[in-house]
Amino acid sequence: MRPGDLGEFRLIERLRVVLGTAGASPGHGAVRLGIGDDAAVLAADPGREWVVTSDTLVEAVHFRRDWTSPVDLGWKALAVNVSDLGAMGATPLGALVTAAVPADLEVEWLEALYQGLGACAAEYGCPVVGGDTVRSPQGVMLTVSALGTLPAGAAVTRAGARPGDLICVTGTLGDSAAGLALLLAGRTAASDPEFAPLFAAHLRPRPPIRAAAGLACAGVTAMMDLSDGLASDLARLSERSGVGARVLEDRLPISLRARDAAEALGVDPAEWALRGGEDYELLFTVPPAAFHALPPLLAAFRVVATRIGALVAGERTLVREDGSEVALGEPAFTHFPP
Amino acid sequence: MRPGDLGEFRLIERLRVVLGTAGASPGHGAVRLGIGDDAAVLAADPGREWVVTSDTLVEAVHFRRDWTSPVDLGWKALAVNVSDLGAMGATPLGALVTAAVPADLEVEWLEALYQGLGACAAEYGCPVVGGDTVRSPQGVMLTVSALGTLPAGAAVTRAGARPGDLICVTGTLGDSAAGLALLLAGRTAASDPEFAPLFAAHLRPRPPIRAAAGLACAGVTAMMDLSDGLASDLARLSERSGVGARVLEDRLPISLRARDAAEALGVDPAEWALRGGEDYELLFTVPPAAFHALPPLLAAFRVVATRIGALVAGERTLVREDGSEVALGEPAFTHFPP
Repeated sequence: MRPGDLGEFRLIERLRVVLGTAGASPGHGAVRLGIGDDAAVLAADPGREWVVTSDTLVEAVHFRRDWTSPVDLGWKALAVNVSDLGAMGATPLGALVTAAVPADLEVEWLEALYQGLGACAAEYGCPVVGGDTVRSPQGVMLTVSALGTLPAGAAVTRAGARPGDLICVTGTLGDSAAGLALLLAGRTAASDPEFAPLFAAHLRPRPPIRAAAGLACAGVTAMMDLSDGLASDLARLSERSGVGARVLEDRLPISLRARDAAEALGVDPAEWALRGGEDYELLFTVPPAAFHALPPLLAAFRVVATRIGALVAGERTLVREDGSEVALGEPAFTHFPP
Repeated sequence: MRPGDLGEFRLIERLRVVLGTAGASPGHGAVRLGIGDDAAVLAADPGREWVVTSDTLVEAVHFRRDWTSPVDLGWKALAVNVSDLGAMGATPLGALVTAAVPADLEVEWLEALYQGLGACAAEYGCPVVGGDTVRSPQGVMLTVSALGTLPAGAAVTRAGARPGDLICVTGTLGDSAAGLALLLAGRTAASDPEFAPLFAAHLRPRPPIRAAAGLACAGVTAMMDLSDGLASDLARLSERSGVGARVLEDRLPISLRARDAAEALGVDPAEWALRGGEDYELLFTVPPAAFHALPPLLAAFRVVATRIGALVAGERTLVREDGSEVALGEPAFTHFPP
């Protein structure tokens, strides 16, 4: 059997079964939360918990060296991990970086990569404290692990959402997918400067982690970062929480620039918002009574949140702009498609 | 310029310079110890520190799939990280595992890998709490990051050794290199059962981390794990501590089995002990007055330590069995040889 026969999520589930108790059931030693959320949570002291996460970027799978400058790639490799910490409500403390590179790679390229890592580390207060530099037989592969901390019991998982909670997202959705689509169409920030923010959203994401830490203290019931696209990520949150969801398409916050790009490319911008992925904004749920306190809190972080629907007892559906309802589908991208 | 023009250690130094303060100088935020030791040390609370480390195994660089069973590979990938934690004196809390695998890899192979990870996790109390499963364009690449903890101020670095301290190692040296040399010569545990412990030393190392945590409380001045071979690892310890070293070749603890294997293959077993690498035993230094308390302490962990020399103010030298002295050389293996 090949990974593709199972698909990524069933593969992970099988590996989790193989690990058994060595796979970090909550309550096992210091483990408060194991495999299956944005990050894991460990505790060894009263009062404080530790959050760890890891993400890998593989050349030709996650990025192309001819589209991504090494500075941007370094930034993004750390940013996506910082985003996972933030999605738990944690504050970053440090990161480990493993760079596997072909022996004939230019050192200057690698130095530029670490410049990007360093810029992101400085921006988010998440210094690179170690890692590994190894030879790769083909292509560049970057693994970043990040460690953060939060007060005991403050971690916001994907599992706490309840029917009636509002579904909210920060920022705009689909900008990263728009940037990627433009790159795939041969456009660049040089050729199309009006789309510069879309390229930036794809190449140099800025997860709102300080706002996330604020949200964690403001009554949100579940939170995760948007990495695989709203449809896929909301499916995971709703499955972990055991609830359904109803999302209003006309509430999806899509930037004017993304709409312009969609028109230029002749595609539907709602598809980018629903399935594009890599927005690294926050998806969170909150009881209606707690929602009204959020805009002023988020304004302090210059973050805007939008209500896009509510959790329900039934299925996950999308209410289209014409009022029709369709099932809100499954993951658009997996590493090992069945 | 290519990585090979610099060599691995100068490459890491250049990347550290690029990172600047984002590269975790001690005192920067929560960072107590940054790049350059077995692991990094972070602190956010009084009384406790956190230790993080990361190691990567690359197919065709670190292992061959036809020599290493997936169960053994999984064990080793976690064991080498646990070893780094132990070398700081830390107790493991959890690990993150990233497996990058080709799309046509057998799922059963991957499950066996996680069986090995799980067995090592259970043995060392270091559950797998998360990670990533991604597609690799070629070959298997495993990155493991591990997190441990110790009392504030208890971390044993490579930098505390002083002239006059004794140089000690745990266990025997060169068994892993002997096992590898036998595999390279086409022998296996099936064909040569008398060498089974040598194959096991190479394929399934058992770092003495509980003994290491004991040593950390018993007055050792510097400690690291033996991953690259005594000559290379002692060079790093002595450079970080700013001292020289004098090692007596006839004191090197070489097992009878490794001597038998060396005779069978017509090689010098002292070379395995000095340059073989992957022993995952401990190299530590201790003032003579504190040494005598160590054997009973270590006996409780069924670990034997051997004095192999002393730190001196001058160079690093090896006293050969005939009394002649030679310079104790440089790293035998780097990922990017100059």
